[in-house]
Parts: sequence; structure tokens; C-alpha cells
Amino acid sequence: MNSPLILITNDDGILSSGLRYLIKIMNKIGKVVVVAPDKPQSAQSHAITLDRPIRCERIIIDDGKQLEFQCSGTPVDCIKLALSKILDRKPDICISGINHGSNSSINVIYSGTVSAAMEACLNDIPSIGFSLLDNSLDADFSQTDNFIIKITKDLLRSNIITCLNVNIPKTIEGKPIKGLKVCHQAGGKWIEEFDERYDPKGDKYFWLTGKFINNDDSKNSDQNLLEENFVTVVPVKYDLTSVEHIHSINKLLNE
Amino acid sequence: MNSPLILITNDDGILSSGLRYLIKIMNKIGKVVVVAPDKPQSAQSHAITLDRPIRCERIIIDDGKQLEFQCSGTPVDCIKLALSKILDRKPDICISGINHGSNSSINVIYSGTVSAAMEACLNDIPSIGFSLLDNSLDADFSQTDNFIIKITKDLLRSNIITCLNVNIPKTIEGKPIKGLKVCHQAGGKWIEEFDERYDPKGDKYFWLTGKFINNDDSKNSDQNLLEENFVTVVPVKYDLTSVEHIHSINKLLNE
Repeated sequence: MNSPLILITNDDGILSSGLRYLIKIMNKIGKVVVVAPDKPQSAQSHAITLDRPIRCERIIIDDGKQLEFQCSGTPVDCIKLALSKILDRKPDICISGINHGSNSSINVIYSGTVSAAMEACLNDIPSIGFSLLDNSLDADFSQTDNFIIKITKDLLRSNIITCLNVNIPKTIEGKPIKGLKVCHQAGGKWIEEFDERYDPKGDKYFWLTGKFINNDDSKNSDQNLLEENFVTVVPVKYDLTSVEHIHSINKLLNE
Repeated sequence: MNSPLILITNDDGILSSGLRYLIKIMNKIGKVVVVAPDKPQSAQSHAITLDRPIRCERIIIDDGKQLEFQCSGTPVDCIKLALSKILDRKPDICISGINHGSNSSINVIYSGTVSAAMEACLNDIPSIGFSLLDNSLDADFSQTDNFIIKITKDLLRSNIITCLNVNIPKTIEGKPIKGLKVCHQAGGKWIEEFDERYDPKGDKYFWLTGKFINNDDSKNSDQNLLEENFVTVVPVKYDLTSVEHIHSINKLLNE
């Protein structure tokens, strides 16, 4: 593909360093249009805005050649608006991220980053959500270049329409990344530990916090491969049918 | 089960008539605890609240025997808070709804109703999201009784831990419901048609609207069975791995 049209979004907001870094990489691959939230929208999952209007305006943030729009809605709103109102043709690929922190295992269902990519895929656009396992403000995104370029170019040259959830381990000195594995979403969940606090008036409020529990011992799960220092690639889909339960539920309800 | 502990939530808010109706039905089956959003939270999907505190307080709305709490968070926040801070033991089942409007086909990924049920299932609690295909304020929920009671009791007496997405057609005189089908999520999507408007200052804003496209011609899809006047039951899961793409993506990236 000569100069592919690349739609970029994220869930950490248009000013986040992961997005700014992704734009620089993608400007080398094709024509980039960014439609991203004007503020952080982490853990917004597939939420869409029905009960209030959405604002969306062009913005210039740096001297890169990309075209950028900031949007008051969720990551999925950004994709819907981009496809419906901003782009004059279907993009060749949609890239979401680079997310600050992991979207492995069950995190995928809460993730705005992956949901935005999935929304593009729903519209027959190949898509990728990239995440770096580093939440710190000065995370080093340069370690992600080679993997992001390779996976993006490979998906572009293929005819496969899917959504890829890619997680990249944080590089630690003396512990190089071992390679890339295509694998499945690990079984796991969050054990909630809400912080209970009292406001100055004495009324109670809660802060959501928690601890991730990996309950998947298979070697080919994203969580376990990330812990072994592999980049993980999980193809994800939006058909939630639990095919393995159809027979037993049918027997339960209809016999 | 003698008097099962039933956790109830929804996404239309604690005052919505679908929830009030569901409480009345469930009070006949077991001990009911309601933890529901204090305002409408439609299309919030699996969103969770990380960037601000959550309020949750006991409230008495009617003279039913249920215990009720209203929560400032999303439907999934309600489940997390209920399991972590409100209930003193794991509920035997979690019921979400009755949603005002369809959660068939691709609507399931945007739905707060089904996401709340799925969050319970993630915590090993059997769960059901019920939706009635009637958005009107005076929707007649009485037509749903028999199906809701049957499906809830059947799931309670089984040992199956799954999440069921149940949609119930609107009853139209002379067109009785034909029965209940366990089936798969229909392929479909929304074609967006954002309304473009201008505020009094002359600045542009958008309202999300759209048209649902059913692109599934299989007989055993929820959308098509609903159109034939069946109640549909789709077991859903939170493992989003697209197993059918693992081989082709592995070949693309690793060979």
C-alpha cells in the first residue's frame, strides 16, 4: 500500500505521551488522522454518549504532518465520529494507543483503547490497540517502535480484518524482550478493595482500587507470556456468544 | 434453593420502571438486594469509575421487602461495590434490567445492563440481563413475568455459572410470543448518522444517532428470532479471544 490512511485514537487523551509517540511512528508509515478524546477516558470500555451532545474540533498541537481533532466524547465516540463525519474515505487501518499500562487478560473488557480499535473493526477496518506495561509519566515508548511498525505493516499488507490487542512489556536493563507471541486472553479478574473515606461533612465515599488475580496457568496466555517478557498479540472479537454454553442452557430451559 | 440471595442492578437508573418491576418479581423468589445507578447510565458498557470517588447510600423507594442502595457510578461499579462492600455473602444470582429497549446483536457490547451481569459472572455468580423491546415510558412489563421467573429459577437450580443475555419481544395484540430460543448473537452494526447542529454562539456540536443494520441471515441469531416473536437467550462470555484468527495472525507475524 502506497500511503495508507491511518486513523489514530486512544483513551488517555490527545495530550498523552503514548499518543504523541504513536503519531510520530505512524507519520512515517502513512497519512495520519487523529481523532482522540480531549481529556483522559481510561476504563471507558465501549461506552458511547447518547444523553448529551459531542463537540469535535480541529486542533494543532505540534508541527507533525498529521491532521488532528479533539473530541469531547469517549474513545468509541471518537471512532464513530471519525468514520461518519471527519474522514472522506474508510481508513486502511485504525491504531489505538499507545496505552499507558496493561490491557492484558480481563483488562481488555474495561479498556477504552481496545474498545476503540474494536469499534473500527466492527466497521470492517483492520485495527490494533497498543499498550505499554508502564504507567509512569516518563515511560520510555522508544522501546516499542520495532514491534509497532512490524505489526502495523504486516496487518496492512494482509487482507485480514481483525482487531489485535497488543501488549508490550516494559524494558528493564539486562532483560531484553524475547520476541512476539500470538496467544489467547488470560483468565483473570480484579479483586476489589474499595477505599472507604469520609468527606469534610462526614459523609462516606469510595475509591475503586484493587488487585489483579491471574488464574490462568496455561503457557499461551497473554498475562503469562508478558511475565516472561514477550510482546503479546491477542486477536479479539465482538461476538460475545459463549458457544460452549449453548447446549447446556438449551437443555436447561427447553427440556 | 430455599430463599436465594438475589443481587439486582440495571443501567436505566434506580427509578426506572423496568427495575421497579423486576424487584417485584424477584421479591417472590428470594431475598433481594438492589444496588443500582442513581441516574440513567445507558450505553455505559463495561465502564468503571477510576478518576473520581463513588457515593453509595441506602434508600427506601417503596414498601417492598428489598434492601436498596443507590450508587453514583456505572452499572459495573454497582456490582463491584455490592460484592465488595454491601453484601455479606456472595449472591446466588445477579439479575440486571429489565432494560428499556433491545440488547440483541451488537447492542450487547454497548449495554450497561449486560455488562453489569457479566461483571457478576466474572466473580463466579450466575447472572442474567433482561431486556424488553419497548422503549416507551409506559411499556407493559407484565408480559415478561413468566419468562423472567422461569429462566431465573432454572438457572438457580442448575450448577451452571454463565451470563445470559435475554431479550423479550414487545407483545402486540394478536401476535403472541412463540416461545424461547437459546441462540447466538446476530452479526450486525450501527450505521452512524450524527446530527450536526449549531449552538446559539454558532459553534458546531453533534448528537449521536443511527440505524441498526442486521447483516446476519442465519435462522438461529437473536435478532432474527426476535423478529419472529421468540424470547431469545444468548449465553455470553468475557473471553474476547478470536480463536479463529490465532492461526492466520501467527502465520502473518511469525513466519
